[in-house]
Amino acid sequence: MRTDHRFRPLPLFLALLCAAAATAAAAAEPAAEAERPKTTQELLDASLPTDWRSPDPGNTLYMELAGGRVVIELAPTFAPGHVANIRTLAKEGFWDGLTIYRSQDNFVVQFGDLTGEGEAPKPIGSAKPTLPAEFARPAEGLAFHALPDRDGWAPETGFAEGFPAARDPDTGEAWMAHCYGTLGAGRDMTADSSNGTELYVVIGQAPRQLDRNITQVGRVLQGMELLSVVPRGTGPLGFHEEAAQRVPIKALRLASEVPEAERSDVRVLRTDTPLFDAVVESRRNRRDDWYLQPAGHIDLCNISVPVRIAE
Amino acid sequence: MRTDHRFRPLPLFLALLCAAAATAAAAAEPAAEAERPKTTQELLDASLPTDWRSPDPGNTLYMELAGGRVVIELAPTFAPGHVANIRTLAKEGFWDGLTIYRSQDNFVVQFGDLTGEGEAPKPIGSAKPTLPAEFARPAEGLAFHALPDRDGWAPETGFAEGFPAARDPDTGEAWMAHCYGTLGAGRDMTADSSNGTELYVVIGQAPRQLDRNITQVGRVLQGMELLSVVPRGTGPLGFHEEAAQRVPIKALRLASEVPEAERSDVRVLRTDTPLFDAVVESRRNRRDDWYLQPAGHIDLCNISVPVRIAE
Repeated sequence: MRTDHRFRPLPLFLALLCAAAATAAAAAEPAAEAERPKTTQELLDASLPTDWRSPDPGNTLYMELAGGRVVIELAPTFAPGHVANIRTLAKEGFWDGLTIYRSQDNFVVQFGDLTGEGEAPKPIGSAKPTLPAEFARPAEGLAFHALPDRDGWAPETGFAEGFPAARDPDTGEAWMAHCYGTLGAGRDMTADSSNGTELYVVIGQAPRQLDRNITQVGRVLQGMELLSVVPRGTGPLGFHEEAAQRVPIKALRLASEVPEAERSDVRVLRTDTPLFDAVVESRRNRRDDWYLQPAGHIDLCNISVPVRIAE
Repeated sequence: MRTDHRFRPLPLFLALLCAAAATAAAAAEPAAEAERPKTTQELLDASLPTDWRSPDPGNTLYMELAGGRVVIELAPTFAPGHVANIRTLAKEGFWDGLTIYRSQDNFVVQFGDLTGEGEAPKPIGSAKPTLPAEFARPAEGLAFHALPDRDGWAPETGFAEGFPAARDPDTGEAWMAHCYGTLGAGRDMTADSSNGTELYVVIGQAPRQLDRNITQVGRVLQGMELLSVVPRGTGPLGFHEEAAQRVPIKALRLASEVPEAERSDVRVLRTDTPLFDAVVESRRNRRDDWYLQPAGHIDLCNISVPVRIAE
């Protein structure tokens, strides 16, 4: 198993900013071992296979770019109608040959069918042209693992089925939270104007103001670094003005439609376990010696759920 | 004057996700004009020259890359010792010919002198080799413009001299907040191990856990899109493993050392005015018709202080 590079040890001669390397110093000082809480890396190293889950291939998308594969987990729990449509679109090869045509700094990249005025859109096959909005869902029936940390955008935040989410006890609603890596369905002015053909991924500071204003459909598990570096578009809102600036999508398929030998064996840390709580706590109050003042707090969107690829 | 593209109008045929275009719909419906509060764009359009400030060229850095110029404002109010050292280093051309050698997804790019073990560092001329840490400063004497919005990381947040900042009435301290675009001085394990020769810029979700753990020295005003797309390093913590992956810095100079004709005439919206409060409110509760559910809240790091370049 290879862990995400955030958790790899730090080359000490380069220890100029080791915020994300929660382990190097601690590893160098075994004397204090007994007294201090475990670092994130130590917690992950001690994890059991049952602490990790393998996303359903039927709800996993592979976006194939020249630079590699982006792995996305869909969220039928939050957006069943959109996810069903996206599954249909992927099965029928809708996105193959289309492009990432928008990259707005500190906001989103967007991809799909870029039609100009008067230009016919790409046929959507057996997918539905219109869908009801799925901005939120009833909190009832949703296993919601709440965080104790205070949040300005919602009464409660936490994780539900591995997705960062929020909940309002007063309205009885729950919704996915717009964090880095969130996949959403672009819409026009009306709530029900998204059908999943145009998708965006958050590449900047969590735009939580979008929560409950647009349908979120999943999140990127692997390959964000392929999306986040797409050169920013110079047109309004980061649209690429020249066709040559757009990034071609070789294919966008469901993992379940890809031969098993070609799949990415992605494992995601479960978010409903005591281990996950311990990992979050190790990020809330960093345990390595580099941190002189632990924050005592963590924002929902500062929690990166650990992901591994089995090799 | 050219406004940042976030505030340009939206091409309606592409109105797939118009979160950042707070104006298009409102502009199309003048009927409701009298009743509704102004959008961000309307507020900026009605601004006076006195609502904007021109950063001191003596505290402004130009980082010249092949792709263009990055404009950085230094923060002597928060880190006088580091800023003085950085000014000396820039005057003496310390960074010229060095590289951006680290790009860690959703975290930072870092630049300066990349020395390996046993390799001699670049001489720092008349700059100081060591400096005291400047993680925080006394709140007293600092003009702090507080936000009413709740924050999990600090008792109070707001702006001070144009920089996102936090304050703790109990300790009497104030400090810059790590937001997108923050410039900080990398350090080793000890608090006083930064001298400004190694700098980083935040390119991802605000890593507020770094607040009060490292010395912040300024923020990027223009050109973030040149830093945020630097291909992520494949080494630990995003360090570039191959020299060819590093991004050369042609020059890093103080604006005051650059002939006036070659300077960027950057204007930054003042953060201590009623207009700024109105702009923040227009982001806290978006006024364009696209938003169906205004957030009623904004996080400090979701506020992008508007910047213009006079042409």
